[in-house]
Amino acid sequence: MLIVQKYGGTSVGDLERIRNVANRVAKTAKEGNDIVVVVSAMSGETNKLLGYAEYLSDHPKREEVDMLLSSGERVTAALLSIALNEMGLAAESMSGRRAGIVTDKVHTKARIEHIDPTPMQRAITEGKIVVVAGFQGVNEQGRVTTLGRGGSDLSAVAVAGALEADLCEIYTDVDGIYTTDPRIEPKARKLEKISYDEMLELASLGAKVLQNRSVELAKKLNVNLVTRSSFSDAEGTLITKEENIMEQPLVSGIALDKNQARVSMRGVADRPGIASDMFNRLAENNVNIDMIIQTVGHDGATNLGFTVPKTELGDAKTVVEGFISDKEVDEAEYDENICKVSIVGVGMKSHTGVAAKAFATMAQENINIMMISTSEIKVSMVIDEKYAELAVRALHNAYELDK
Amino acid sequence: MLIVQKYGGTSVGDLERIRNVANRVAKTAKEGNDIVVVVSAMSGETNKLLGYAEYLSDHPKREEVDMLLSSGERVTAALLSIALNEMGLAAESMSGRRAGIVTDKVHTKARIEHIDPTPMQRAITEGKIVVVAGFQGVNEQGRVTTLGRGGSDLSAVAVAGALEADLCEIYTDVDGIYTTDPRIEPKARKLEKISYDEMLELASLGAKVLQNRSVELAKKLNVNLVTRSSFSDAEGTLITKEENIMEQPLVSGIALDKNQARVSMRGVADRPGIASDMFNRLAENNVNIDMIIQTVGHDGATNLGFTVPKTELGDAKTVVEGFISDKEVDEAEYDENICKVSIVGVGMKSHTGVAAKAFATMAQENINIMMISTSEIKVSMVIDEKYAELAVRALHNAYELDK
Repeated sequence: MLIVQKYGGTSVGDLERIRNVANRVAKTAKEGNDIVVVVSAMSGETNKLLGYAEYLSDHPKREEVDMLLSSGERVTAALLSIALNEMGLAAESMSGRRAGIVTDKVHTKARIEHIDPTPMQRAITEGKIVVVAGFQGVNEQGRVTTLGRGGSDLSAVAVAGALEADLCEIYTDVDGIYTTDPRIEPKARKLEKISYDEMLELASLGAKVLQNRSVELAKKLNVNLVTRSSFSDAEGTLITKEENIMEQPLVSGIALDKNQARVSMRGVADRPGIASDMFNRLAENNVNIDMIIQTVGHDGATNLGFTVPKTELGDAKTVVEGFISDKEVDEAEYDENICKVSIVGVGMKSHTGVAAKAFATMAQENINIMMISTSEIKVSMVIDEKYAELAVRALHNAYELDK
Repeated sequence: MLIVQKYGGTSVGDLERIRNVANRVAKTAKEGNDIVVVVSAMSGETNKLLGYAEYLSDHPKREEVDMLLSSGERVTAALLSIALNEMGLAAESMSGRRAGIVTDKVHTKARIEHIDPTPMQRAITEGKIVVVAGFQGVNEQGRVTTLGRGGSDLSAVAVAGALEADLCEIYTDVDGIYTTDPRIEPKARKLEKISYDEMLELASLGAKVLQNRSVELAKKLNVNLVTRSSFSDAEGTLITKEENIMEQPLVSGIALDKNQARVSMRGVADRPGIASDMFNRLAENNVNIDMIIQTVGHDGATNLGFTVPKTELGDAKTVVEGFISDKEVDEAEYDENICKVSIVGVGMKSHTGVAAKAFATMAQENINIMMISTSEIKVSMVIDEKYAELAVRALHNAYELDK
């Protein structure tokens, strides 16, 4: 098999950990696999360099920030190659440029445009383990670019796609994707497999193992992703396309997002385009809207509610108060003490009653549901924050996710 | 003017010093000059990275060491560009590769083969200050190489040559080349100008401001070198071709080398090729011979003496004792308590009596001369180490170098 392995900053955080990673790579190699390793900078390194730049300038030029930051992954790549060589394995480190990773020209958050896998393929043919500096590429102008937060994961997925690798393993300090947060529900079970779409819903809802950009790219390139821990031998979770998962469970996981706040407006003016005006204004102020609900009250007035990240509530409030000053909204309430609980599962597509069971479970626990939003594979409910953990455990139990 | 400025590790040792360098570059720019800056890694950085490599492997692969070490200069180049941008100056950092520096494939001590100055010239035409990561290049195989100790100086000289720069300024913590070590002779005077050949003799004799490789390259490429301090505004010393120095002084400087040991053999067998055998054997054991003297004693036996670096005396002794065992040498003495004092000056070429004055000065001070070696522009004498400083001061005075 051809396996791409990606190790994050914590996994390569010091020299002993780099040696530990080398051992793991060596083990996979001895099982007869070809391997490309993608590495992040040693943990703390990127922030240290960024701190240097910010000390010298409030607005360091992005081209120079990329030149600066890209050095961190080069160091790790060289060190891991040295550790592998010491174990008697042939290894060759490659910068993003040398690995053929070409990006657009948007410095500090470039997008990978294409990969020329020839140098990697040549090295693999020579029997070498290729160690690629993650997080970086080169643009058409020949300058180094970086891919933004989570960039090394993107590098790994893109490299796996370009090489048509059998597997892309993402190593972190978490050993896989769980049915829910084990700190809330100790009976949470590690999932063996999950579909890209489910993972996308779980990631955006707070399961921060993988960034959505990486999962989206894996889906697009049809890369089989595995997330697992570099500190244990436990099997991880395979993220793959739906067709590869034989037995689709009804529900795969319960996600909890406590970083939400709710805005509820009453008496919204009955004027065409007012909702559009409001959401445009919010977007202009960089407020990210999640759920939106519009109802007509028993007095005939229109009520409008939405949720935003807690950190953006202040900006949202400014916009809404403007509409109140303009007499287009009667009054508004702002509530930070809410959370969003979501049930995710591709099985919902072909089964009815999944949402009904969620609502019934909330009712049994006397939890009031403030807002509901559903998609093909997800049911989200906004509830009082104080019931967050109770709701998660009740739902986990109701869908028998511990079995 | 087009000026290449090179700043060493101490000059860019921390962020405040980098800002200080930016100020100095800005000042030169405001005087209407085009500037290319070549930087070393922040002091300590290269050794730190090398320590990492050695922790992981006793014999790290040279290709990987180059990948590792080259990151240090990239960081400094980016940081200096950021500091320059912050001052409102357009600047662009370039790796060795981007600056067009192509080397041979000898990793960790590559030689620069040629430079394609096009990217640097384009940036200069755009009104930018170019900041080049020193010490590094790229070989024909596309891999990063480094140039060995003093490599950033070499980068600067080569870049100055390729761009036909008017001046190549090497900034260190020393403000120029002195007639002798000021710690020995407080009356030592900073030289305004010195020829390449004199500098080569002074450097190899212990004035460690510039490595010989850099001076040799400057001579070959006809680059006007200036060594000066990044911590003061004092004018430095211009190292240029002889024709550019109108008034040639008789003697330019006195050099002292305390890192020498002497081997004296008596009764060397009268066999053709024995000296050749001995010096071949020494070379095979990586012993660097400096001076050699052969005499015939009053008893008719041949005596042979030579000097070696103190650290290589042990190896030299092993070789010599082998010849004694083989009855090809009667006996040998080893003396670590010696030093070499040298008088350097291109003026010697056209003046007689320079050496005679040196010997007379030694005689006046009752210093016994053990060995003498001369070249067109140099007279070297081996004396007892305890007279080292006395001899330097006496010679400095005899040739009136303080005037």
